[in-house]
Amino acid sequence: MIETKSLGIVETQYARPPGELELESGEKLGPLTLAYETYGSLNADRTNAILVFHALSGDAHAAGYHEGDDSPGWWDGMIGPGKAFDTDKYFVICSNVIGGCKGSTGPSSENPQTGRPYGLDFPIITIKDMVNAQKKLVDSLGIDKLLSVAGGSMGGMQALQWAVSYPSRVLSAIPIATTARHSPQQIAFNEVGRQAIMADPNWNNGDYYGGTPPTRGLSVARMVGHITYMSDASMGEKFGRRFKDRLENEKFEPDFEVEGYLQYRGDNFVKRFDANSYLYITKALDYFDLHNGKGLNQVLKGVTARFLVMAFKSDWLYPAYQSLEIVKACKLAGVDATYCELNSQYGHDAFLLEIEEQSYLVKHFLNSVSENNGNGKHE
Amino acid sequence: MIETKSLGIVETQYARPPGELELESGEKLGPLTLAYETYGSLNADRTNAILVFHALSGDAHAAGYHEGDDSPGWWDGMIGPGKAFDTDKYFVICSNVIGGCKGSTGPSSENPQTGRPYGLDFPIITIKDMVNAQKKLVDSLGIDKLLSVAGGSMGGMQALQWAVSYPSRVLSAIPIATTARHSPQQIAFNEVGRQAIMADPNWNNGDYYGGTPPTRGLSVARMVGHITYMSDASMGEKFGRRFKDRLENEKFEPDFEVEGYLQYRGDNFVKRFDANSYLYITKALDYFDLHNGKGLNQVLKGVTARFLVMAFKSDWLYPAYQSLEIVKACKLAGVDATYCELNSQYGHDAFLLEIEEQSYLVKHFLNSVSENNGNGKHE
Repeated sequence: MIETKSLGIVETQYARPPGELELESGEKLGPLTLAYETYGSLNADRTNAILVFHALSGDAHAAGYHEGDDSPGWWDGMIGPGKAFDTDKYFVICSNVIGGCKGSTGPSSENPQTGRPYGLDFPIITIKDMVNAQKKLVDSLGIDKLLSVAGGSMGGMQALQWAVSYPSRVLSAIPIATTARHSPQQIAFNEVGRQAIMADPNWNNGDYYGGTPPTRGLSVARMVGHITYMSDASMGEKFGRRFKDRLENEKFEPDFEVEGYLQYRGDNFVKRFDANSYLYITKALDYFDLHNGKGLNQVLKGVTARFLVMAFKSDWLYPAYQSLEIVKACKLAGVDATYCELNSQYGHDAFLLEIEEQSYLVKHFLNSVSENNGNGKHE
Repeated sequence: MIETKSLGIVETQYARPPGELELESGEKLGPLTLAYETYGSLNADRTNAILVFHALSGDAHAAGYHEGDDSPGWWDGMIGPGKAFDTDKYFVICSNVIGGCKGSTGPSSENPQTGRPYGLDFPIITIKDMVNAQKKLVDSLGIDKLLSVAGGSMGGMQALQWAVSYPSRVLSAIPIATTARHSPQQIAFNEVGRQAIMADPNWNNGDYYGGTPPTRGLSVARMVGHITYMSDASMGEKFGRRFKDRLENEKFEPDFEVEGYLQYRGDNFVKRFDANSYLYITKALDYFDLHNGKGLNQVLKGVTARFLVMAFKSDWLYPAYQSLEIVKACKLAGVDATYCELNSQYGHDAFLLEIEEQSYLVKHFLNSVSENNGNGKHE
């Protein structure tokens, strides 16, 4: 057992790369703000940097504690001294995606053309656009080659896109619980969430900043999401058919614990997330198609990064077969790929919760990539 | 091959059983109207009656055509001359559940206390209450013993409840794609639908009759439902990632065919279904727990009906393991049960779509039940 420690107090930083970001749509976005955090130290050769990516509702705060906060960043179990992404060895960077609402430029940011929040004037963005924004950040930090790019769910899509868009800048990729393109079922669940938001009169065609936001619609969207993040088995274990405590017996108030839990998660989410960001980011997920009209193996030709691909048996939102499609395409393209299917009950949430087994796999994979990169043998 | 024919034109009838229905909640419901249809003829011994049950959004119109309609009843492939439920031999009855909005007493019916639609003054109803209402109908038709009770999804729950509540009245039961109790995941999907309805300001706490109904909320609820009725594979086959034709390129209008399909199904549903009925019926589903605090095999002790239990491999809403729990409990209780898991791609919708294989199994099962009942050998 290696002893792991917390990173302690960390702070979000803000980069303002010069110029505008040219988007896949042809539109331009700028000036650009990118919220990001870093953990560990960049070595003298600048060869130990790892970029990690957050999922739909995540942010730049991947690890450590913000001053005064009780809970750490969303991947704190994976990032820190002695952990999978070992900050004693690596320099870990995480930035909030564009389109988000956690410090990077998104629909709630000020539109320089009007001086008011963008709302629906914010341009449509894609996973590739998110990656291109991150590239500006990595450039501004003076990092030429990333030792690894890693993330789960939407984070995994960004890892895949990095390896394909910037093959000379990426030594390895760790896509977890993800896909090379959204299936109709994945699109359908997102569409229900979007419809719930847009059905809320407070959404007001995206123009609600300074007024009442569409909290009921966003809450329903989040509830749908939560069901898809868990497995039938994990819900069964967590809630069973237990009834919740009710003060009064109003019709159609939550009866079952699972109903109360979903409402609680939904109501909490609206305090920390912007409904328009939910629309833009889910659309980016749905548009994602690394195939780009070709065979995936064609797209992966020329990729030099080594891949560690992980999926979870009980994940029915991003089922293992989608990870296997990536691995198969890697093999056909001559890309070095290792595949691990982990035996978790947690469903899609497993990439956030199954720390021990993921840590073991990531740690050894990164050691091997790092050694091949001439960084000397660790441990 | 047996030649099958259509039933031709059929009509919905209305029964008004005397007295009130005592509900599980202790409340009373009445006067009661039950919409029902019958197909085929009751024999002189009154021994050839089969009761079939509809699912969440179904109605009494199970087979044949209503005057002027282009499409037949919801189980027309299964019910008719020469079909699985062969109306040359059997007298088939189907009634709309109480709480519904298709002719039987429900929240949109007139509350005799106020002269206005019930709305949320309609009492909470359960699957058992639905079955008790049907019992009044069967009694009024002068039928003592049912040759079979059969249905898919919520219809399967009613079949199970009949066999348990009225063991001396039921010779066989055919529960299809169903469960003896709703899992937390099943409850969760229903709760999202209810929240979507109740989030619609037009819902107005259930008091919208004569005004604008909560169509946007009900449409979102139906969209969630539709995703759960299909399988990942059937959605992939039906839609892929094809883009739909768009007249204009408004942001967050449907891009993908699957989005357009869901919206179409949602928008269509609100024309034919009442939002309050959706709330009451989904609650009845969620409350359903045949276990009743005991082992299911204890509950099935004393049941004399023979069971044909069917599930579909790609049905992830009512997964096969739930059918197997029923079969296992039957075996432990000494109840004669046959189990068939059918290899369909259609997901939960398979009980409506996989006609050929279901027909074969149902036909032979009913023949055998009928022979044992002294009705002589058929075919």
